[in-house]
Amino acid sequence: MITDLRPFFNPKSLVLIGASETPGSIGGMLARHLLKGRFEGELFFTNPKREEVFGHKCYPNLQALPSNPELAVIAIPARFVSSELDNCAKRDIHHAIVLSGGFAEVGNKELEEELIQKGKKHNIRIIGPNCAGIASTHTNMIASMENTYLVGGLSIISQSGALAGSMMLRATAEGLGIDKWISFGNAADVEEAELLAYLAKEKDSPTKVIFLYLEGATKGRELLQALDEATDHKPVIFLKGGRSSIGNKAAMTHTASLGGDPKIYHSIAKQTGAIWVESLDEAFDAYTALSSYPNRGGKRVAIVTNSGGPGVLISDNLDFAGLKLNQPSEELRKQLKDLPSACPRENPFDLLGDATPERYALTLRALAHSNEFDTIIVVMVPPGDADINGVAKVIVDIAKEEHSTAIIGCLLAGEKVTQAVKTLRENNIPSFPTPKRVAWGAYSLSRWQEIKAQKKDREN
Amino acid sequence: MITDLRPFFNPKSLVLIGASETPGSIGGMLARHLLKGRFEGELFFTNPKREEVFGHKCYPNLQALPSNPELAVIAIPARFVSSELDNCAKRDIHHAIVLSGGFAEVGNKELEEELIQKGKKHNIRIIGPNCAGIASTHTNMIASMENTYLVGGLSIISQSGALAGSMMLRATAEGLGIDKWISFGNAADVEEAELLAYLAKEKDSPTKVIFLYLEGATKGRELLQALDEATDHKPVIFLKGGRSSIGNKAAMTHTASLGGDPKIYHSIAKQTGAIWVESLDEAFDAYTALSSYPNRGGKRVAIVTNSGGPGVLISDNLDFAGLKLNQPSEELRKQLKDLPSACPRENPFDLLGDATPERYALTLRALAHSNEFDTIIVVMVPPGDADINGVAKVIVDIAKEEHSTAIIGCLLAGEKVTQAVKTLRENNIPSFPTPKRVAWGAYSLSRWQEIKAQKKDREN
Repeated sequence: MITDLRPFFNPKSLVLIGASETPGSIGGMLARHLLKGRFEGELFFTNPKREEVFGHKCYPNLQALPSNPELAVIAIPARFVSSELDNCAKRDIHHAIVLSGGFAEVGNKELEEELIQKGKKHNIRIIGPNCAGIASTHTNMIASMENTYLVGGLSIISQSGALAGSMMLRATAEGLGIDKWISFGNAADVEEAELLAYLAKEKDSPTKVIFLYLEGATKGRELLQALDEATDHKPVIFLKGGRSSIGNKAAMTHTASLGGDPKIYHSIAKQTGAIWVESLDEAFDAYTALSSYPNRGGKRVAIVTNSGGPGVLISDNLDFAGLKLNQPSEELRKQLKDLPSACPRENPFDLLGDATPERYALTLRALAHSNEFDTIIVVMVPPGDADINGVAKVIVDIAKEEHSTAIIGCLLAGEKVTQAVKTLRENNIPSFPTPKRVAWGAYSLSRWQEIKAQKKDREN
Repeated sequence: MITDLRPFFNPKSLVLIGASETPGSIGGMLARHLLKGRFEGELFFTNPKREEVFGHKCYPNLQALPSNPELAVIAIPARFVSSELDNCAKRDIHHAIVLSGGFAEVGNKELEEELIQKGKKHNIRIIGPNCAGIASTHTNMIASMENTYLVGGLSIISQSGALAGSMMLRATAEGLGIDKWISFGNAADVEEAELLAYLAKEKDSPTKVIFLYLEGATKGRELLQALDEATDHKPVIFLKGGRSSIGNKAAMTHTASLGGDPKIYHSIAKQTGAIWVESLDEAFDAYTALSSYPNRGGKRVAIVTNSGGPGVLISDNLDFAGLKLNQPSEELRKQLKDLPSACPRENPFDLLGDATPERYALTLRALAHSNEFDTIIVVMVPPGDADINGVAKVIVDIAKEEHSTAIIGCLLAGEKVTQAVKTLRENNIPSFPTPKRVAWGAYSLSRWQEIKAQKKDREN
């Protein structure tokens, strides 16, 4: 069996089988996305009814192609897919993404079994069927039903194609970039474990963080092992759909997979060192934090704020997440002597409502270089005329200084902070919109450092 | 003691004591906001150093005013406030908002005690000190440090001024309107319980929903009674800052209030029928849902979706919140006979990835009129070219038909759904950005109906 998945993401040449211009058709969408993505390898289209698709030459069938493509992307009705695999074999194709729906997910188990057997017979590895495709942004291969993306370091492996699509759209709206985006559908052949292993170990991989959305594992033991190995290389954020009994029932209907006891997945995450999240917000916030600070963070957290209220709400969430608001040393307190006397020299560090950028700078600089905190959460609520953009610049400057403290922002709220949030993001400083979410960002950093330490301990 | 709080929100005339043009000063901000808000009553400014502030006549002191104002808004240094109350008494003023900081919150307990005694002596009711003021949008009285608002039905009572400010900004960014916005600061005199009672019982009140943010109750018994009474009239959303032990400690430092056992507040909410929330997102989502559907919703929830994944995640959150995904009757299933055979006639109703607006219309209409569901959550993930705006129009049409089902949206995600979300909001249909948050919206509706039923039972 072929084990190299590279051609799914970086093929030298690719054929879209079922290319069309029909609005709403999968073949039409894929043709548009592949062309717009400017795939750098050789790109072939086939469709017996067309000579051209969106101005790109279209061949009647695989046989007519001038050379053998490395990857087939199949977007034709389900009943024709198996025989098309015979044609793929004749062109020495060993990797196929099958977007076509109408297999096991609608009860056509025989059709899916036929597909599996054809794949085995011809030694063709299959992703899908019933999937939304693959986008590989660094190789400009956008063989996916969604194509609104920025290029970056997050890779998504999702059992739900539409959910993965919504995550791509959301990532883009939040300025977060994608490396690989994989909807694996029914997992007739290649499943989550093999994909995880590939993304974790890929050479010179642009993937910094992996996000896995799963409703039911295809192969439990393989998943456990793949998660354990993958987290040796990079953070894996894990969201299990169907954690409740009602949700689990819905998941089983949806993916026709054996849901299993939902609680077992939490144990698997804990055991393997995957970062367990329970919502899309938690997943995004973990990624936002980890993409900036893969090697920073920990349990010792400081809050620097110009308002007590958000400090209190963040403290609550840090406490529930098992993090600490440790108090500054005498030495550090002394460094804060130039703060107004009304500012408490305590964590949370409340710089009061009239806090200036200078007051933030004095405090942040002392804390960041003190080695007393792993993460500093900087809160800014702009009362009236407060200089929020000035504070953003201070954060950027101090984050760039030489220390190993993670600095993350929580700017509240609305249009008044839009520019400041943009400034932080452009400088690779994570920013979160609510007290709860910034606390989750701090937790994610801490959890990943903890996982790495535990793994190192185990090795020794 | 004067018990009518009306002049705090709808005074016939108002004097800003300490009006100025100094950037960053409270007196400057308040002068600007009052002028920009176009307060309809008579507006006086005083400041011994100025004859005009932003083109508006300014008197040297209260004595010089041509008539007695009904409300004083005080923005002068703390040490001058008490003697200014003597002057207020001479002008027959019985309501004062004191924005000035520098009292108990920085340890000046004597100064605060002096203020309290002066208030008692002159029969002047005081909001503050150390507060961010009051905005009353329906009377154009913007005596607050924040002034970015839309006019609407949410009233906010907050112990934290800056947090309240950030909530006003966020509400505006999300298109949600404010009625009254109250930062009560140190609560030297008027506190949360009295404010709650006023907002709940105000005649012809534009307030539809009350949000209360509290770190520590000023008077426990009064709060309990006020919550119990207020929820007889309208929903009260309650967020307690300092629910954890670390957060509680931070809260005590922040407000100098006796935090008390954080767990007691959860019991109080349960007992009185306040809607308990644990984050700003939950507070906003509860308000979003309740402002559209104060009299709809319940435990029986249907999910209509074009993608299984979000359906699964919503199911999880509904289950954890104690809501039900009940299955349709045979009768209702029959009404869905024109759906494609691949669509399961089951809840969640998965209309599949190629769902058209017509397919949504058929399903939604049957469900909304069936009396089998209290709330329908409509999920739309736009795969490729899907007609998301067409679906939004369908939702709007069916929501307006005659039935008593709450219809709420969950459109995922990013810029692709911006217009559709806008369409829903313009038509007063709540829309939520994630599976978890739409489930919380459905829960809030159900919880409020449950509270009303329990209260009715108790009466009988």
